[in-house]
Amino acid sequence: MFRKTIRVKSEHEGDVIDLSDNVKTIVRESGIQTGLVHLFVQHSTAALTTIEFEPGVLEDLKRALAVLAPDNAEYAHNTRWGDGNGRSHVKAALVGPSLTVPISGGALMCGTWQQIVLLELDVNAGRERMIICTIDGE
Amino acid sequence: MFRKTIRVKSEHEGDVIDLSDNVKTIVRESGIQTGLVHLFVQHSTAALTTIEFEPGVLEDLKRALAVLAPDNAEYAHNTRWGDGNGRSHVKAALVGPSLTVPISGGALMCGTWQQIVLLELDVNAGRERMIICTIDGE
Amino acid sequence: MFRKTIRVKSEHEGDVIDLSDNVKTIVRESGIQTGLVHLFVQHSTAALTTIEFEPGVLEDLKRALAVLAPDNAEYAHNTRWGDGNGRSHVKAALVGPSLTVPISGGALMCGTWQQIVLLELDVNAGRERMIICTIDGE
Repeated sequence: MFRKTIRVKSEHEGDVIDLSDNVKTIVRESGIQTGLVHLFVQHSTAALTTIEFEPGVLEDLKRALAVLAPDNAEYAHNTRWGDGNGRSHVKAALVGPSLTVPISGGALMCGTWQQIVLLELDVNAGRERMIICTIDGE
Repeated sequence: MFRKTIRVKSEHEGDVIDLSDNVKTIVRESGIQTGLVHLFVQHSTAALTTIEFEPGVLEDLKRALAVLAPDNAEYAHNTRWGDGNGRSHVKAALVGPSLTVPISGGALMCGTWQQIVLLELDVNAGRERMIICTIDGE
Repeated sequence: MFRKTIRVKSEHEGDVIDLSDNVKTIVRESGIQTGLVHLFVQHSTAALTTIEFEPGVLEDLKRALAVLAPDNAEYAHNTRWGDGNGRSHVKAALVGPSLTVPISGGALMCGTWQQIVLLELDVNAGRERMIICTIDGE
């Protein structure tokens, strides 16, 4: 198994950061030709998924997440702790922190319009996010 | 690691295709008794999950996805590209493209009412969908 | 590969059960220092994710899931089978049954506020839930 940590810095709540090039670089470094790359974001207010990295789609995704956890709802988490990121925790738990992508010929087997992304969901963005990248294979 | 591609053809937006038999066949071919089978759909408007494959539940799932991304909402993706599948991208990113299931005694360890399914979410269905199936184990 | 089954008993619909200690114990037993732990819940009305295990957040998560699948909606599954858990199936399929977490130095690489949880989503709770825990690594 080959492991590296990807570190990215978000600026605003709702940022979607394309990690595809970061992951490709690590796959290349690993020298693994056939296998799986597993990603895990070590934070409870960020999440990982795949999506077409196109500004319109990213905007549409934000709106859908706001249906689940609206900005102006009352959050029990906020009432208890006063940190205002109740909606961030909810969205992150529903999208999930982990993702696994197959590798073939040393390349990611994603579709043409399918990028690997980090969703910055915290209202207090502008922080470093760490994504553990683990590659297993031959 | 043993790898095969499952190819299925969807007909309509909202189709749910049961992949359980396809996956079982590949597990058998692999000869692997104890391990994990990893699935990844190579498209940005389809997704993978598990569900009881019962028409009522599948209908209920479609309605829930339409709460997140309604048919008649305005999508920035549609405005930019005019291809009408903004809702498809949003749903796919939220459900996710990857799934891992344990294998024991050469069989999938799913629950009795738990089938592995592909969700066809694109408005332009009727296309071939490819699911990469990777098995690791002994 | 090292494998054990975690068995927990839920009491009510909406219970969120912290599995972090169960998983840590199995990682320790395995003796594996660097690797991945994969979790899979063998039921179609329960799900796995990570979240800050804080009562306010858990309450907020329940409300968000009820937006997707409201208590008082009509479910085709209920109409057909009369078992009243249509909403449970829908929520479980959207959150998903599987989760993978990296291990380093024999410890889970979760964030400080990131616990591994089972969501009991069935209206008929009070049952034993089985989570297959598979560890791969060195």
